[in-house]
Amino acid sequence: MKQIQKLLVCGVGLIGGSFAMAARKHKLAKKIIGIGRSPDAPSLAHARDLGVIDEIASGWNEALDGTDLVVLAAPVGQINDILATLSLHLASGTLVTDVGSTKGEMIESIYRHLPHHLPNIVPGHPIAGAEHSGVEAASADLFERRRIVLTPLPENDPAAVLRVRAIWQKFGAEVNEMHPQEHDRVFAAVSHLPHLLAFGLVHNFAQRANADQLFSLAAGGFRDFTRIASSHPEMWRDICIANRQPLLAELDQYLSELAYLRSLLLAGKSDLLFSHFAAARDARNDWLARAEVSPPKDHNGDL
Amino acid sequence: MKQIQKLLVCGVGLIGGSFAMAARKHKLAKKIIGIGRSPDAPSLAHARDLGVIDEIASGWNEALDGTDLVVLAAPVGQINDILATLSLHLASGTLVTDVGSTKGEMIESIYRHLPHHLPNIVPGHPIAGAEHSGVEAASADLFERRRIVLTPLPENDPAAVLRVRAIWQKFGAEVNEMHPQEHDRVFAAVSHLPHLLAFGLVHNFAQRANADQLFSLAAGGFRDFTRIASSHPEMWRDICIANRQPLLAELDQYLSELAYLRSLLLAGKSDLLFSHFAAARDARNDWLARAEVSPPKDHNGDL
Repeated sequence: MKQIQKLLVCGVGLIGGSFAMAARKHKLAKKIIGIGRSPDAPSLAHARDLGVIDEIASGWNEALDGTDLVVLAAPVGQINDILATLSLHLASGTLVTDVGSTKGEMIESIYRHLPHHLPNIVPGHPIAGAEHSGVEAASADLFERRRIVLTPLPENDPAAVLRVRAIWQKFGAEVNEMHPQEHDRVFAAVSHLPHLLAFGLVHNFAQRANADQLFSLAAGGFRDFTRIASSHPEMWRDICIANRQPLLAELDQYLSELAYLRSLLLAGKSDLLFSHFAAARDARNDWLARAEVSPPKDHNGDL
Repeated sequence: MKQIQKLLVCGVGLIGGSFAMAARKHKLAKKIIGIGRSPDAPSLAHARDLGVIDEIASGWNEALDGTDLVVLAAPVGQINDILATLSLHLASGTLVTDVGSTKGEMIESIYRHLPHHLPNIVPGHPIAGAEHSGVEAASADLFERRRIVLTPLPENDPAAVLRVRAIWQKFGAEVNEMHPQEHDRVFAAVSHLPHLLAFGLVHNFAQRANADQLFSLAAGGFRDFTRIASSHPEMWRDICIANRQPLLAELDQYLSELAYLRSLLLAGKSDLLFSHFAAARDARNDWLARAEVSPPKDHNGDL
């Protein structure tokens, strides 16, 4: 694989940091530069001290000079502003990809700010994360045996898509392609909705007069059900807002499901309740048995 | 502690089997007898072959002859019939306790069938379980550092309550007492509702045309959120039906919570969404930090 002369990682947290470390491990990049909200950010200095990046960029002009790959790994809510800034500095040959959990809004921003750069911007989403966020939790192996979903634009240069795909494969990931809208619908269901449901349940208990009693008697089932409610609130606010139309559609479908379960409880329809539960258990156990790519073990950041 | 001459375990599954094993480990019972739906049940023979019980009772008359402690560990849905049968054979001095996850219906059945035995029937609920059900998953240490909730009857002999409490403490558990209605409301919230929610989400995905796609892209967050949807459907049907009034009240409160979150999404109120998520994360992390009794690790059977 052709080596990257200069890799720019924008947002050196868990995912951006892991991308940098994987690139280093696989000898894919000669030089790795980090950029963030401010060159003085302690997290960037930390990333440099850890050896995750070689240098901190003092500004976009310098950062993009001679760069052949940009990875956007900042929170979803900042991407629009970053793309607006990129539009002032980006050279035409530079390849750009991102790692955002939602794709629709990001792609709108690409068309808005970078209409002349469409061949070389390939949106992507690694289905990977970990219990903790931040560069301290980053790992060169984070993407091994994980899925990466690319949502290429019709205007993408096929060679650019192949290049991004090859990099992820080099990191040990399995790469799929999907339509951006399909991506956003699927992840609204399997990721964003469960996060919303878990945050909601914990919030509801926490504000009650007997909150201490409830938590003191909660056990392992509750702990696992709500694990994703320990996720980063800013990140999840951004994701829920960016993907709110598909998320609302999923929430409404789930509310219908709960209304049906409510009717079964109310009427005491134990046979239907049993078959409902049994079908769910069978479906989940089938999923676990068939899973080709094992779900991340300690995951709760990104998905 | 006074030794039990003859312990009868009714329903030798995960909890009943673990009770028997713990009694043996702590040399609390001279003889341990098992009884189930039928003396020919393979699960009872298995429990005997594993040494969990000494003998299989051929009938209730024999089973209760000389028994000083009965532990009812059959599924919640069978308890009413078992109490009706017990009423024909139970000697007045025999102590009875149970391990059911809901208490209201069970206590109604006690008043219905055993009005002359109230001093010696002490309802209880161990907050313990494991990934797998059945006697194969039983362990003498299952109750160590777990909570046991007793919901004594006003008619209980205080000595009977103390005796049941002492046995659980001998097994390493922490024993609390609660009013039965309070118990059922609390567990509707922290246990039964999350199970219903997880079963509902998996069921909803499983019946869609793109179910395979959804499951193939689900990751660790979804896996943990839905772990309790791999629980025993018959057991959870019984629990949800037995405790359906408190469960409906909890479901309605949660539906209100979701309606509020829906309104925030719809209006794009990102600040309120952020503070909602942040409050939930803080509450959950406080809970994990303070937890005196660690939530069971591999739990999903009983709670």
